[in-house]
Amino acid sequence: MSDEKFEVLGLGNAIVDVIARTEEDFLLHHGLNKGAMMLVDESASARLYEAMGAATIISGGSAANTIVGLSSFGIRSAFIGKVKNDDAGHSFAHDIRKSGVHFDTSFAADGPSTARCLVLVTPDGERTMNTFLGACQNLSLDDVDENLVRASSILYLEGYLWDPPAAKEAFVKAAEIAHAVGNRVALTLSDSFCVDRYRDEFLELMRNKTVDIVFANQHELKSLYQTSDFDTALAAFRDENVLGAVTRSEEGCLIVTRGETLAVPASPIERLVDTTGAGDLFAAGFLAGLVRGCDLRDAGRLGGLAAAEVIQHYGARPTVSLCDLATENGLALPI
Amino acid sequence: MSDEKFEVLGLGNAIVDVIARTEEDFLLHHGLNKGAMMLVDESASARLYEAMGAATIISGGSAANTIVGLSSFGIRSAFIGKVKNDDAGHSFAHDIRKSGVHFDTSFAADGPSTARCLVLVTPDGERTMNTFLGACQNLSLDDVDENLVRASSILYLEGYLWDPPAAKEAFVKAAEIAHAVGNRVALTLSDSFCVDRYRDEFLELMRNKTVDIVFANQHELKSLYQTSDFDTALAAFRDENVLGAVTRSEEGCLIVTRGETLAVPASPIERLVDTTGAGDLFAAGFLAGLVRGCDLRDAGRLGGLAAAEVIQHYGARPTVSLCDLATENGLALPI
Repeated sequence: MSDEKFEVLGLGNAIVDVIARTEEDFLLHHGLNKGAMMLVDESASARLYEAMGAATIISGGSAANTIVGLSSFGIRSAFIGKVKNDDAGHSFAHDIRKSGVHFDTSFAADGPSTARCLVLVTPDGERTMNTFLGACQNLSLDDVDENLVRASSILYLEGYLWDPPAAKEAFVKAAEIAHAVGNRVALTLSDSFCVDRYRDEFLELMRNKTVDIVFANQHELKSLYQTSDFDTALAAFRDENVLGAVTRSEEGCLIVTRGETLAVPASPIERLVDTTGAGDLFAAGFLAGLVRGCDLRDAGRLGGLAAAEVIQHYGARPTVSLCDLATENGLALPI
Repeated sequence: MSDEKFEVLGLGNAIVDVIARTEEDFLLHHGLNKGAMMLVDESASARLYEAMGAATIISGGSAANTIVGLSSFGIRSAFIGKVKNDDAGHSFAHDIRKSGVHFDTSFAADGPSTARCLVLVTPDGERTMNTFLGACQNLSLDDVDENLVRASSILYLEGYLWDPPAAKEAFVKAAEIAHAVGNRVALTLSDSFCVDRYRDEFLELMRNKTVDIVFANQHELKSLYQTSDFDTALAAFRDENVLGAVTRSEEGCLIVTRGETLAVPASPIERLVDTTGAGDLFAAGFLAGLVRGCDLRDAGRLGGLAAAEVIQHYGARPTVSLCDLATENGLALPI
């Protein structure tokens, strides 16, 4: 680490996506829960890969996608995540670095291979994910570069980090270091099933002030408060005293503070291709706005713009400059 | 090999494509010849990969793309090509099999890794390719399954096979076996620089009747006859007494027989994204028409349709059913 300053640092699972189009029947036949992320072991991953169709391989990982999106907005960004010293690991490192992101987490020399997520995209654009966490299970306290955390205005953490055993320690330590120097800490709840696995911990992270900013979609929010009624969940969320951003697909997002709830419409799209990365890129746009001092409404618009870009093609990383896209849409970021 | 019959068998280099968007400057800076395919060794490939941007990985290989296109048209197809027993080799095998293609060439247990082609796509949609042939260099006579060649109505060969030392023997042997049982043999000239390397051999293949059907684009044809005048090249080609298909990008194609030259217009497109695979998929459509007994004009139209599909997205393999696409365009293939 040099004395370089970063605007956002992400900590998350470093994953390579293996994407294939599929029919609804395939999901039924393989007992897959449409729209969800399921954890699978290496052999189950291999079996599902064998069954699924011809695939395209693109670097992914939820927080990593967000950080690449931030970099595309021109935000100085860094990422911490664990890959193995194998082909997929080198692809991941190459892609994130070439996206302008500072990444120097050491490669695991042995142990399980680099994580991969089998992404099955149905004709309606919905994605169903099956993740083998692999090398991510080796992310540990030692990987949290304290200077890097201190040097980054916002620390962004993914809820999925609760899955690999040692990562939550890294998560909590990073949040403590960030807060100790007055930086902000953001969390995405990641997935409604992830919320189901770690509900109490996630609520505690908000209530004990480990996190200041929380991203959730409507399903995750309902799961968090164990209610089928969105308004009930929203009211409970408003009482948590965090800055919240709740995404609602084509209905846009709600930005929740103790004082008010702000509705921001979604950006229009021409054609929905693959929803993978929608939430990740919303977070990128919102954080880009926040870290550059935009008002909350513009931050929400930037999130919507980035999400709209990523769902119109396969893969969860932007294929155009989000900085240019923002400018073209009258949302140029302050320097 | 069972007693299964195939309509088209492809023999070619088995390659995984690593695709990145790039600017014109990058090509200049790295001394790359825009639009061409250049052979590079493993270390040059690694250096270029290090320099290029975030990439998407999709199975490729010229003849392999054609065969996958044929399968997408519903044509019973098979492929022979050499990969290593590594991650990329397994991806290649998975993808081509899952595309409905019969593929059982043995994996190389040692030697160089599976071939990869670094594909740089400029904003105008043109692609510039840098290929490390790797395991393709181990394709040999032993890989040509004689029963498979006999069982396939058309044998499709790529000019690029002249690059790996042992592959041309496999090429010639396969053609002899095919002709011995009355099957047809097709050749694509692959690339104008490839023609430059093997001009005399390619002319000889036509003149000694090793090949019956020849695919070329206008650049390759001019290179073949060492002329800058397309009409001169075309006249010379007409005298070769082969069935020729000459592609001319947005001007469509010319189908050349001894008796006549037939012009078929290109299929309209909405947006040019990546020209990778245009020629490969034209060959797929044309051969699909030919093997199913369509007239030459319809075969040319089918070629244009498949080429138009593949240039509107990244990667050289179709992303929709070409069989359905043909039907929707009034070109349903006879059973």
